[in-house]
Amino acid sequence: MTALTPTPLVPPGPDRDLLRAEVDAVLDAFLGRKALTAVDQRMPTEVSTVLRDFLSSGGKRIRPLLCLTGWHAAGAEDRPHSVIQAAASLEMFHAFALIHDDVMDQSATRRGHPTVHRTLAAHHSRGRTLSAADRLGNSAAVLIGDLALTWSDELLHTAGLTPTQLTAVLPLIDVMRTEVMYGQYLDVTATGTPTDDVERALAICRYKTAKYTVERPLHIGAALAGAGQPLLDALSAFAIPVGEAFQLRDDLLGVFGDPAHTGKPALDDLREGKATVLAALALRQSSQEQADQLRTFLGLSTLTEDHADATRGIITATGAGHKVETMIAERYEQALRHLQAAHVAPGPARLLRELADGAVRRRT
Amino acid sequence: MTALTPTPLVPPGPDRDLLRAEVDAVLDAFLGRKALTAVDQRMPTEVSTVLRDFLSSGGKRIRPLLCLTGWHAAGAEDRPHSVIQAAASLEMFHAFALIHDDVMDQSATRRGHPTVHRTLAAHHSRGRTLSAADRLGNSAAVLIGDLALTWSDELLHTAGLTPTQLTAVLPLIDVMRTEVMYGQYLDVTATGTPTDDVERALAICRYKTAKYTVERPLHIGAALAGAGQPLLDALSAFAIPVGEAFQLRDDLLGVFGDPAHTGKPALDDLREGKATVLAALALRQSSQEQADQLRTFLGLSTLTEDHADATRGIITATGAGHKVETMIAERYEQALRHLQAAHVAPGPARLLRELADGAVRRRT
Repeated sequence: MTALTPTPLVPPGPDRDLLRAEVDAVLDAFLGRKALTAVDQRMPTEVSTVLRDFLSSGGKRIRPLLCLTGWHAAGAEDRPHSVIQAAASLEMFHAFALIHDDVMDQSATRRGHPTVHRTLAAHHSRGRTLSAADRLGNSAAVLIGDLALTWSDELLHTAGLTPTQLTAVLPLIDVMRTEVMYGQYLDVTATGTPTDDVERALAICRYKTAKYTVERPLHIGAALAGAGQPLLDALSAFAIPVGEAFQLRDDLLGVFGDPAHTGKPALDDLREGKATVLAALALRQSSQEQADQLRTFLGLSTLTEDHADATRGIITATGAGHKVETMIAERYEQALRHLQAAHVAPGPARLLRELADGAVRRRT
Repeated sequence: MTALTPTPLVPPGPDRDLLRAEVDAVLDAFLGRKALTAVDQRMPTEVSTVLRDFLSSGGKRIRPLLCLTGWHAAGAEDRPHSVIQAAASLEMFHAFALIHDDVMDQSATRRGHPTVHRTLAAHHSRGRTLSAADRLGNSAAVLIGDLALTWSDELLHTAGLTPTQLTAVLPLIDVMRTEVMYGQYLDVTATGTPTDDVERALAICRYKTAKYTVERPLHIGAALAGAGQPLLDALSAFAIPVGEAFQLRDDLLGVFGDPAHTGKPALDDLREGKATVLAALALRQSSQEQADQLRTFLGLSTLTEDHADATRGIITATGAGHKVETMIAERYEQALRHLQAAHVAPGPARLLRELADGAVRRRT
């Protein structure tokens, strides 16, 4: 591998805050250049401004961090700018995914701020009816998402990777995108009609989160460093259980979490009727009466706080909440066992363990 | 340039129907493979079925044709499979653009068939309220569009291009996408509040259509064949006026066209209040009374056939319709003049002239 702009590694391994700062600097500079070009070409600067605000409003940068961790896990000691930029492209892709997700879910807030489609509807409300402004907000947000997707390609293409590196990662990028979109498709078409199909809920969880958020970023980083199939397989053995645990925790937070921490309204997941493992288990383990009530409340767009409390009560009473906690703990242990067996250097191994801890124990 | 699977050229130049058939065969085989993979991975096969139906329901394949014409214009005589696949990737990208466009415009039909979001809403209506099914249709269509965008990348990445070819076209692909999305963004944010700003309407026309539909596909094909800047510039001098003429014709068809030919309802453009050059000219050249009426009708979602007739009458009376016809004729002549000066071989030159004729004289 080549070091275009080598950055010294902080011993005994890279620090999460440092990696995050490196990734954010790339994103910020890229969007700054896009803003200048838009001015030159008399194109709307609103697009890059909205994306900058969105990216700077929070986010854990998990995917770029895992990409860089995969890079170091494959034995790379330096960390050239090209690899940081390739890692940053994953965050730009994720901005696309979240912006489209919020339009589909019609979410009002994200990370404690109004969602992109809401911001744009408000910004373009003058001279329009409320419904015309809402429609414009949705359309403009879909387009800003599309641009984020395109710009994630551009970040990758202009990173300065070698042809060998590009050839190694382009197929992984293609597969990652198809997986997350298929997972999202399964999710969207299952939402609103909750069933006790735990296997389908787990498949959604695997494609939407475990592969997209953990496995593929690690693979992409490792492949940039020239890793072969045995390391990719070892990383998968760690990544899939961690990713599933991450999503199972997310499902619990969506129902039982504190909106002050999660940054999104507490009722959204219930009102949507998301086809989660938690909901499927509750339906499977409930009495007839409980199941009838759950089917009434899950996906009810007019769900109140009282309904939500009743739903939480049933989910807890069926033992589904406890079962999901157990599944998270099992997956966490399984992931750590595989990590120990994987012969990853201490620096990246520590990062992976920290990320697994964070994914499983987080409150946001 | 390398010929991986050389296809003999039909003298004295490639035939449009042959090129179209080659492109369609690639798209069909690709989506067939996607369907098989989806079965294997227990992912929804609906996605590739919907895309196949969409692509087979019509479409002129203008962008792949122009890409292949650019390839031959740069002197290439054979036509390897890799280049046909790269050209096909532009059609897959276009499927993305149209599917998202129809969601944004809330169009009911495209090419005489129900739009993708309408088809999906109907398909998933069981057990859902009408509005929940509509929302699901929109979300699923956005996701299928996202997958088409991702798969257009995959078609390009897996075409078997040389590293030199990939390096030459990736920046052009990135620029093309950013241009069309910016143009679309300008369009969406201008729609519903029509003004007499002819310059802005022309900018939308240039970015959304002239560059996206004509200039960039030609550039991409020529760059695949190793063309230098002088040929790219000569192609631009032809492409921009042809593309503008194409869009100006589209604007006229949107207002005055026969739905039996265009395949979309006659009132959509008026009801949307699209910021077209035609509308801007009509507003600029109208009396106060005419302008007031136009502002009432353009963007009126409840517009009737009678309103539409009145609007058409005003547009004609202001001379805007005639002026747009003149602009089309001027651009057509300008394009042909530049084509003659461009020293393109007779085969591709004939194709370019045919495409210019078709773009300007079409009824659909």
